[in-house]
Amino acid sequence: MAGNTFGSVFCVTTWGESHGAALGAVIDGCPAGLALGESDIQQALDRRKPGRTPGATPRAEEDRVKILSGVFEGKTTGTPISLLLCNADQRQSAYEELRDVFRPGHGDYTYFKKYGLRDWRGGGRASGRETAARVAAGAVAAKVLAAEGIEVLAYTKAIGGIWADPEAAVAGITKQSIYASALYCPDARAAAAMEERLAQVRREGDTLGGVVEILARGCPAGLGEPVFDKLDASLAAALMSIGTVKAVEIGDGAAVAAKKGSEVNDPMTEAGFEKNSAGGILAGISTGQDIVLRAYCKPIPSLSLPQKTVDSAGRPRTITVAGRHDSCVLPRIVPVCEAMVCLALADFRLRQKAVRL
Amino acid sequence: MAGNTFGSVFCVTTWGESHGAALGAVIDGCPAGLALGESDIQQALDRRKPGRTPGATPRAEEDRVKILSGVFEGKTTGTPISLLLCNADQRQSAYEELRDVFRPGHGDYTYFKKYGLRDWRGGGRASGRETAARVAAGAVAAKVLAAEGIEVLAYTKAIGGIWADPEAAVAGITKQSIYASALYCPDARAAAAMEERLAQVRREGDTLGGVVEILARGCPAGLGEPVFDKLDASLAAALMSIGTVKAVEIGDGAAVAAKKGSEVNDPMTEAGFEKNSAGGILAGISTGQDIVLRAYCKPIPSLSLPQKTVDSAGRPRTITVAGRHDSCVLPRIVPVCEAMVCLALADFRLRQKAVRL
Amino acid sequence: MAGNTFGSVFCVTTWGESHGAALGAVIDGCPAGLALGESDIQQALDRRKPGRTPGATPRAEEDRVKILSGVFEGKTTGTPISLLLCNADQRQSAYEELRDVFRPGHGDYTYFKKYGLRDWRGGGRASGRETAARVAAGAVAAKVLAAEGIEVLAYTKAIGGIWADPEAAVAGITKQSIYASALYCPDARAAAAMEERLAQVRREGDTLGGVVEILARGCPAGLGEPVFDKLDASLAAALMSIGTVKAVEIGDGAAVAAKKGSEVNDPMTEAGFEKNSAGGILAGISTGQDIVLRAYCKPIPSLSLPQKTVDSAGRPRTITVAGRHDSCVLPRIVPVCEAMVCLALADFRLRQKAVRL
Amino acid sequence: MAGNTFGSVFCVTTWGESHGAALGAVIDGCPAGLALGESDIQQALDRRKPGRTPGATPRAEEDRVKILSGVFEGKTTGTPISLLLCNADQRQSAYEELRDVFRPGHGDYTYFKKYGLRDWRGGGRASGRETAARVAAGAVAAKVLAAEGIEVLAYTKAIGGIWADPEAAVAGITKQSIYASALYCPDARAAAAMEERLAQVRREGDTLGGVVEILARGCPAGLGEPVFDKLDASLAAALMSIGTVKAVEIGDGAAVAAKKGSEVNDPMTEAGFEKNSAGGILAGISTGQDIVLRAYCKPIPSLSLPQKTVDSAGRPRTITVAGRHDSCVLPRIVPVCEAMVCLALADFRLRQKAVRL
Repeated sequence: MAGNTFGSVFCVTTWGESHGAALGAVIDGCPAGLALGESDIQQALDRRKPGRTPGATPRAEEDRVKILSGVFEGKTTGTPISLLLCNADQRQSAYEELRDVFRPGHGDYTYFKKYGLRDWRGGGRASGRETAARVAAGAVAAKVLAAEGIEVLAYTKAIGGIWADPEAAVAGITKQSIYASALYCPDARAAAAMEERLAQVRREGDTLGGVVEILARGCPAGLGEPVFDKLDASLAAALMSIGTVKAVEIGDGAAVAAKKGSEVNDPMTEAGFEKNSAGGILAGISTGQDIVLRAYCKPIPSLSLPQKTVDSAGRPRTITVAGRHDSCVLPRIVPVCEAMVCLALADFRLRQKAVRL
Repeated sequence: MAGNTFGSVFCVTTWGESHGAALGAVIDGCPAGLALGESDIQQALDRRKPGRTPGATPRAEEDRVKILSGVFEGKTTGTPISLLLCNADQRQSAYEELRDVFRPGHGDYTYFKKYGLRDWRGGGRASGRETAARVAAGAVAAKVLAAEGIEVLAYTKAIGGIWADPEAAVAGITKQSIYASALYCPDARAAAAMEERLAQVRREGDTLGGVVEILARGCPAGLGEPVFDKLDASLAAALMSIGTVKAVEIGDGAAVAAKKGSEVNDPMTEAGFEKNSAGGILAGISTGQDIVLRAYCKPIPSLSLPQKTVDSAGRPRTITVAGRHDSCVLPRIVPVCEAMVCLALADFRLRQKAVRL
Repeated sequence: MAGNTFGSVFCVTTWGESHGAALGAVIDGCPAGLALGESDIQQALDRRKPGRTPGATPRAEEDRVKILSGVFEGKTTGTPISLLLCNADQRQSAYEELRDVFRPGHGDYTYFKKYGLRDWRGGGRASGRETAARVAAGAVAAKVLAAEGIEVLAYTKAIGGIWADPEAAVAGITKQSIYASALYCPDARAAAAMEERLAQVRREGDTLGGVVEILARGCPAGLGEPVFDKLDASLAAALMSIGTVKAVEIGDGAAVAAKKGSEVNDPMTEAGFEKNSAGGILAGISTGQDIVLRAYCKPIPSLSLPQKTVDSAGRPRTITVAGRHDSCVLPRIVPVCEAMVCLALADFRLRQKAVRL
Repeated sequence: MAGNTFGSVFCVTTWGESHGAALGAVIDGCPAGLALGESDIQQALDRRKPGRTPGATPRAEEDRVKILSGVFEGKTTGTPISLLLCNADQRQSAYEELRDVFRPGHGDYTYFKKYGLRDWRGGGRASGRETAARVAAGAVAAKVLAAEGIEVLAYTKAIGGIWADPEAAVAGITKQSIYASALYCPDARAAAAMEERLAQVRREGDTLGGVVEILARGCPAGLGEPVFDKLDASLAAALMSIGTVKAVEIGDGAAVAAKKGSEVNDPMTEAGFEKNSAGGILAGISTGQDIVLRAYCKPIPSLSLPQKTVDSAGRPRTITVAGRHDSCVLPRIVPVCEAMVCLALADFRLRQKAVRL
């Protein structure tokens, strides 16, 4: 109930602070007999690594995952899988200046109000670092999905208002076309423009937001539980639980609010649906088409520019958040979005097994 | 796990089909000692009633709620509150033609794929009628919130691409200014344009989508549970669990993805936050400011126009969904959005009680 | 979290007070496609009816169940099944005298301390009447189990210290041999002695306790979830959640605490286990043998004898609980124990479906 | 849902196998601001250490706990507390002979049937070693309870049929009187007789069962959630979830089944309850008296005597489980029972905070 658990059958609990000893995830409910090794997980973690783009953080975040339980002789046993990521970088001194001051746009203030105290070392539990545990758990979910013929891909759809070509996007996208780009954007021309924009904003000491699109292929019809645990409701929660995400949409998304029913409905023929405005979900249940989602991410709130804020006692302060931060949460958030969609889909795939005798 | 329950402390389970004997909600976890009567709930249900606007359904949906348990001598007892809504209109004959055919844009196909059979009478459990139980439960949640000084308001923000004035919107809105409008739109000029647009589209046999904005006032800082049960994640799920909603955003929402950090961050001063781009939530926890959300609704999929579809055997069919349907899910969905936000906030308000000793 | 829900896949929420308008159960997670009618449930309810034995309550408890949702054309649809039992007997006047006084051995005092107020009409939610909803839901669970080849039987094992023959008990027991006895005791000789003892104690104005044994046949090996949701842990909770039960044991139960390992271990041979000291569960998972449990029930606390107690203000009172009460909770509690074991087993049977891909 | 989580507000997930790299627990929902250090936990773990009694296992189980998250500057932060116990003894070779054979009385067979494979190193997840994580988590729960004035004590009540003096037992028991005894039995005379009996049975190559009594003092009236999550139901599940426990009773327990109501009811006077037959719980809610429970433990199934069993292929085998095992699960299980009761009570204490506005 304290909110660090996700899923009801494929159930993940994460723990750990940005600058504590370690962070990790416990997966309870992974089916037995699945081949799983640390390298399956490491691959996903490596995609979240910083340092790929000009604006990227130079912090040491070399995450090596250890599987502490739940796997025996290369296979899952059905018991909890404990994943451990030790924190190489525990220098709390770098954050001493944040002990009493609330960074604008961060959770510093709200954690303090909620708990009466807070771990101020690099944001503590509210740090983006927490998402490393999600990516690790998501890699296990991806293996469950792969065993069921389902593939999830995430990629950069927009940065700072520059959009990838919508036409090119969904149909031909592959893992290769995504990871060929330092920004995880399969549209090379757009990617180049994004990099240019990023460089400029970084020179200003500012940051940018962007849009991640997530695509699930091979998902059978029938996943999702009416009425509250609709597939889209759970996917929206999954994505919105990432600190940076401020809006989520499915299929044609927000655009449908300005359209007519005759434009939005997806007609059916003997060959299947004629189009996919619905994004692969109707009445909260998968249609068997591609599932298409978009997560809108805010700019990273840590700026090199001076900002007005207050300290714990409510006194005015000016803060300049120094140094080692990315200038855009993309592309590093892309594998996190992918992980969250994997976690949600793996859960619903397993839930569906109990729907019929 | 089958998805018909919402909340973890203030916990609501709904049941019932569109054309079954009845529908209802069971609330488990409502605090004891709260004054509650049927009229508290009836008022909310009446706002969901059809027949207010030109394009509204003429179906008989005179919902009278009965409280069957959990209230004694005018006060909640702490035991489950069972709410019953009998279905006046159980004419299954009107739907005989839908027995074997899947309506485009509806859940007919997905329910059939999920369960292997379906209740085809008016959509069964997938009908919008299911939301009446949510509204009833939401009215109880609203009483919990009122006791804690929190008020939730929902209103029509846009229909068919016509938007209410964004400036006028949040600050001065009251229940009165909302319900003075047949469309629940506090901006009278926009409302008039929306009605005109609706009338025109209805003449075409078509339908329109729209946007609902929800505003929570008086919410203390500190509500929301990191990391998966963030307040915004749960609110997004709450809204996206309404069948018609295809996108959800918080505060400045999708727009932040194209902005710079210096534009999006809300500076703090001794007097509080200088603005509210965040929509009242930082790092998944309420800031104490107004919480502002928007739900983007698709057009009602039941059209008077002929549509291509298939039947249970996969054979092509043309369908014209006759008659008694609204031409826009707004304003009737407005109280549903309000109810879902009330349910989520009441739950988080109670969850917060266990966070400190 | 407020405790009125049982199960995680086959999930039941009950509601209702002894003398309120009605009581009921909502089952969420019953698989789709199961044949189900009101008569399936009525049969189980009839077995809980009072009036079979000399010492039985003459209250009108003619329970007629209505299925309000989740069943269409004679089959479950996968959506919530709402079961309704209207209360014929709502005479609150009969309980006026209990408004301010706590009956010894009842929940009057603890409900008052927990909630700050209480529904004093016949015990309200704490009444044995609440178990009618469990029996109704349990009948649906029994149908799920029957479809999987599992049968659950419960019967009177002891009353007031008089025990049924332990040898005769398990092997040859059938529904017929149980229900042939007014006391639901398949050992006719013991049953006669129990009836005599009951008659005597009733003449004294006193009441008696007893033991229910529950037997599940046909349960496959592999049900139960380590480590906290062990099958025996969940069955123990299921039985101990019945107000009258003060001890639960599995297999040889409490007796094993005085034995040696060589006596308790069940040796295995090619033909299977040589005996069943374990009661069909090892390490919290079913072995495939019969599951055997016993629930120890306290005497009904409502006596015709004067008892010392206090009122809401803490002042001493003497109370004589008049009239219409059973002198032993058996046999009426027998179908309740059966229902609870059915609910637990149905849940674990469905949970097992997600354990392997 | 896979069963490795306990509690709904104070929520613990354990993970780890007997001979894997490590085992641990994640506590989600511990209130913020509680003073907590590794020594608080270590003390409890040390009480579970082997080697105190003649019949005790000589295995190296020097458990050193590490707190990896959720504590900052000596106080809990409200975020998940991750506890780690590394396994010193990972010698899988010692168990090679168990690879294909099922030990009688163990979970070897049932795990294999459930999952289709099993970790055969020392019982894997089904090993008693798993309870170390429970003890660690229970120590945190004990600190929550202490802050609320509640103390939980567990002690040896019987071994091999030799009982501690029932009169002496409850009233004067202290932590000191318990831990003064190598068997954790506060009745020294009984303890001596137990040790003698244990020595004799150990010489026979056999093992013994016993009874643990658990006593909670200072628990306020009002804890427990009707109807399914009754306090006694949850405590029964908590204890029965320990692999060795085959029966659980509360207060006078099983004995009430042979008594009259006038003997069992606890009369109330101005000074409080006159006696405590109920064991501190009425209608599933605490009365404010001492809570008294007993757990009946079976003899350890690992015997030095030859036993009949089968292998994975169903072929008959004779097995002698060599060496390093205790001859009785008491006293080592005593801190585990204490831990489980602490976990349950801490959870209900926090749940009660949301019952009234």
